[in-house]
Amino acid sequence: MPKPFHRLCSVAAALEVFGDAWTLQIVREALYGATRFSEFERHTGAAKNVLADRLALLVEHGVFEKVDIGERGVRYAYRLTEKGEALAPVLLAVIQWGDRWIYGEGREPVVFRNAETGAPPAPLTPLWADGSEVKLSEVAVAPGPGADDAVRRRFSGTGG
Amino acid sequence: MPKPFHRLCSVAAALEVFGDAWTLQIVREALYGATRFSEFERHTGAAKNVLADRLALLVEHGVFEKVDIGERGVRYAYRLTEKGEALAPVLLAVIQWGDRWIYGEGREPVVFRNAETGAPPAPLTPLWADGSEVKLSEVAVAPGPGADDAVRRRFSGTGG
Repeated sequence: MPKPFHRLCSVAAALEVFGDAWTLQIVREALYGATRFSEFERHTGAAKNVLADRLALLVEHGVFEKVDIGERGVRYAYRLTEKGEALAPVLLAVIQWGDRWIYGEGREPVVFRNAETGAPPAPLTPLWADGSEVKLSEVAVAPGPGADDAVRRRFSGTGG
Repeated sequence: MPKPFHRLCSVAAALEVFGDAWTLQIVREALYGATRFSEFERHTGAAKNVLADRLALLVEHGVFEKVDIGERGVRYAYRLTEKGEALAPVLLAVIQWGDRWIYGEGREPVVFRNAETGAPPAPLTPLWADGSEVKLSEVAVAPGPGADDAVRRRFSGTGG
């Protein structure tokens, strides 16, 4: 079982799963089509022991499932679960931020297209449920239904 | 100057800025309104030396600017730059994934609302430029205008 998260926060909890420079790159490679240990090794450049450790963590957290594909004896493939594929918006947000703010327009290392229509992805834009764009000044943060006392204390004041 | 990124990839490059369990939590607290060292310390639980190190990294990368607010001598506030505020979609994607896949519906530790309308945020959904939803099976990955030989070799094959 994954260890309990030491802070009740979806950012902290999510980062315990993929908050590591290697982990999100492994998920990226899986979204690009990699399934085999050797493919992850080649494309991420991670050392074997680091990669084995991170893949085990991601299997433990249910991001990947390890499937015996039985070619010439026991051989494993790592496939993203539904939980793993649900990381696609996180990856896209990271890629778009890096493209815009680190490399800059016209210097993107990698581009994505709709294979059929050729359309590029639109910038990921936070929207309210009514369809209007989220402005940071409009956002109110409050304890949720799963908050504990620490979270409630945290947001009882001015938010600062 | 930030050191050059050792891999030409927006995920790897972005993770050198915030691919650390503390760093994205510091940005989260800034988006929640924190500006002072003591506020980041209290709300992230990071040790002083870790926090000082990460804040310096984020200033170096232009995610925060350090502003002398001159109360009773030299006192600094850390404010998100435009580049830093542009991390909001990354944070929201991470929070929504953690809420859905780690805590589960009805157990979210923290919730967001539009302060005026009360509307919740919509799920961040990758869309193509024509407005249709991105399906992973449709995505084609190719070297971009800023690709180097390694990236071009990487995507010349079947993608695996």
